[in-house]
Amino acid sequence: MARVTASAIMELIKTTAGGNYISFASGLPDPALFPVDRVRELADAVLTEDGRAALQYGPAEGYPPLRALIAETLRGRGLAAGPENILITNGSQQALDLAVRALLNPGEGVVLENPSYLAAVQAFDSYEARYHVLPLDDGGMVTEALPAALAERPALAYTLPNFQNPTGLTLTGERRAELAEAIAGAGIALLEDDAYHDLRFEGDSLPSVCALAENPRAVYCGTLSKTIAPGLRVGYLCAEASLVVRLGQLKQITDLHTGSFTQRIVYRYCERGWLEPGIRAFCESYRRRRDVLLEALAAELTGIVRWTRPAGGMFVWVTLPEGHHTGALLEQAMRRGIVFVPGASFHPGGGGENTLRLNFVSATEEKIREGIGILSGVIRESLA
Amino acid sequence: MARVTASAIMELIKTTAGGNYISFASGLPDPALFPVDRVRELADAVLTEDGRAALQYGPAEGYPPLRALIAETLRGRGLAAGPENILITNGSQQALDLAVRALLNPGEGVVLENPSYLAAVQAFDSYEARYHVLPLDDGGMVTEALPAALAERPALAYTLPNFQNPTGLTLTGERRAELAEAIAGAGIALLEDDAYHDLRFEGDSLPSVCALAENPRAVYCGTLSKTIAPGLRVGYLCAEASLVVRLGQLKQITDLHTGSFTQRIVYRYCERGWLEPGIRAFCESYRRRRDVLLEALAAELTGIVRWTRPAGGMFVWVTLPEGHHTGALLEQAMRRGIVFVPGASFHPGGGGENTLRLNFVSATEEKIREGIGILSGVIRESLA
Repeated sequence: MARVTASAIMELIKTTAGGNYISFASGLPDPALFPVDRVRELADAVLTEDGRAALQYGPAEGYPPLRALIAETLRGRGLAAGPENILITNGSQQALDLAVRALLNPGEGVVLENPSYLAAVQAFDSYEARYHVLPLDDGGMVTEALPAALAERPALAYTLPNFQNPTGLTLTGERRAELAEAIAGAGIALLEDDAYHDLRFEGDSLPSVCALAENPRAVYCGTLSKTIAPGLRVGYLCAEASLVVRLGQLKQITDLHTGSFTQRIVYRYCERGWLEPGIRAFCESYRRRRDVLLEALAAELTGIVRWTRPAGGMFVWVTLPEGHHTGALLEQAMRRGIVFVPGASFHPGGGGENTLRLNFVSATEEKIREGIGILSGVIRESLA
Repeated sequence: MARVTASAIMELIKTTAGGNYISFASGLPDPALFPVDRVRELADAVLTEDGRAALQYGPAEGYPPLRALIAETLRGRGLAAGPENILITNGSQQALDLAVRALLNPGEGVVLENPSYLAAVQAFDSYEARYHVLPLDDGGMVTEALPAALAERPALAYTLPNFQNPTGLTLTGERRAELAEAIAGAGIALLEDDAYHDLRFEGDSLPSVCALAENPRAVYCGTLSKTIAPGLRVGYLCAEASLVVRLGQLKQITDLHTGSFTQRIVYRYCERGWLEPGIRAFCESYRRRRDVLLEALAAELTGIVRWTRPAGGMFVWVTLPEGHHTGALLEQAMRRGIVFVPGASFHPGGGGENTLRLNFVSATEEKIREGIGILSGVIRESLA
């Protein structure tokens, strides 16, 4: 436990929540986009028609109709899923944590991207994981580095194939197949974090890594937090039925089950056919904001810094020339009213001091333009 | 993880949920008592007045007004609590699990009552705990046995002082002070599970064990599951501020935070002054059901078996003469349409094959009478 410390991002969000900052720091979507009226209508319907069950204890594995519905959704992503393969969790964070708790012994090794999702790394840290890190390029995780990492006999591989947090990068189809086969061949567990799957602005959906090779210890994690609302805390995992039984036992000792009321709201939201148009609305808004951010970066910082061009998700990753430290930059930025997350904290393998993460889904288009103006000024001054 | 297996109770609940059994087995309250209309009114108010925040991510430690309100409640139980001492969790089960995860290393010892709460024992099991068990009598945990247990250098003591699950027994005031001082004196962690605190039908409330001695690693766990509704999954823990910071970091990697929407519903429910009358309504109904159960046992089984007379909570504990096995009895009982939980599974220290747990809050008074009639027949036949 000594390795679990406060998340730099969460501390930053707390510090800046009260102020008038333009925030590129958090993973918080703009709440103006949440379907408040629809959730209110459904909350009322659930309590009117099914109120007693909605307030009662429920099964550890989740509300059966929701498990069936998620299974159907995941068959569309190439996964051979039935209800028995699904466990409902409090967001995908709990799916990750349960999987790690079941599949990783203290001190064992984890193969993962460098940089990677901070709260997953913290979950690994809590089990005293050792890291075997793989670099990223425009095609996502560089799989050429995989054989060397697997030779170190890790217990688990962790990947975010779509619009990775923090870089926004997407793993190519070819590399997905390579990764899936190499992991299965090595006989180790695979943890696929696909929280951003539906937030694709362009291009075709790629098959999930878990779908590309037979692996009895493959766990696929997803969520409704990005496509309905995070405050409901409904996510899920998909795995072999026998592993889901095991994870359900663990879920039970962890917190008995995910909320009966909120699971029913999410189920009805999907059942009414509101999910697809809801996703389109999120994507349209996020795509416009991404475009504004990319245009502003191009106008202000071309030839000065590099950045990713994500096909979806929530984040753009900026790389300054070697030797420049974004941690020092943050202080300047905050003094002028903007916040971002310095990239070093996302690097379980170290490095990344010259990188930073920009979220494009919190601020409005106007504020993004204004904020990138300020950021560009700070960067240009520091490089001068 | 190999030690975590399916809960016998949960499996039983699944098996019998579809059928026409009279259930004394589960810990599920009668859903007819849930305040469905009030929750619907509040769900609507929360989404109308505070909808965006209710659907947004929130702080790991919980919704600040709810933390303050719980702190105020706990000051009434003798705990020196401010908002900084409170962490909001998904029911008290998660409070237990987080505390164990932070305070117990694999293989360390736990002092606890024998029998004890099954899902807590399973959480301890998941950390490969060793057990030092203490017997119970009518005054709760027998503290005379404590010095010998503490001499074995355990890391943590776990107790349910009020209307213990599974026995219904309450720890006396004198023993609470003894226990608190002995634990603090030994310098080990104290985990107090007070999930049933408000379900007191008679007699005065006793001070919490955590309030009776200075202990920097004392964690007090409670819940709104028994006093509003379990399906909302809102519980809490109370501990020293620095420990709450640590547990908040752990909560974050576990599932980020407890639902923003449901926390706000619970907060408003309390703020409107509905909690106290709600508790009175639960207690009146549960007290009547307990009385019906105790009267039926007295009429049918006096001199044949022994049972506890709980001053609150949800459970009565029945002890058959030595040498009789309630596991074998269950089969007979189920054939005639009733279910209970055989007591052996609640015993981390072994024993209890001649005991069983009866829940008196699931079935109606009429069904309780009918069910105890059946149970008495089965018991008398088996003893004949």
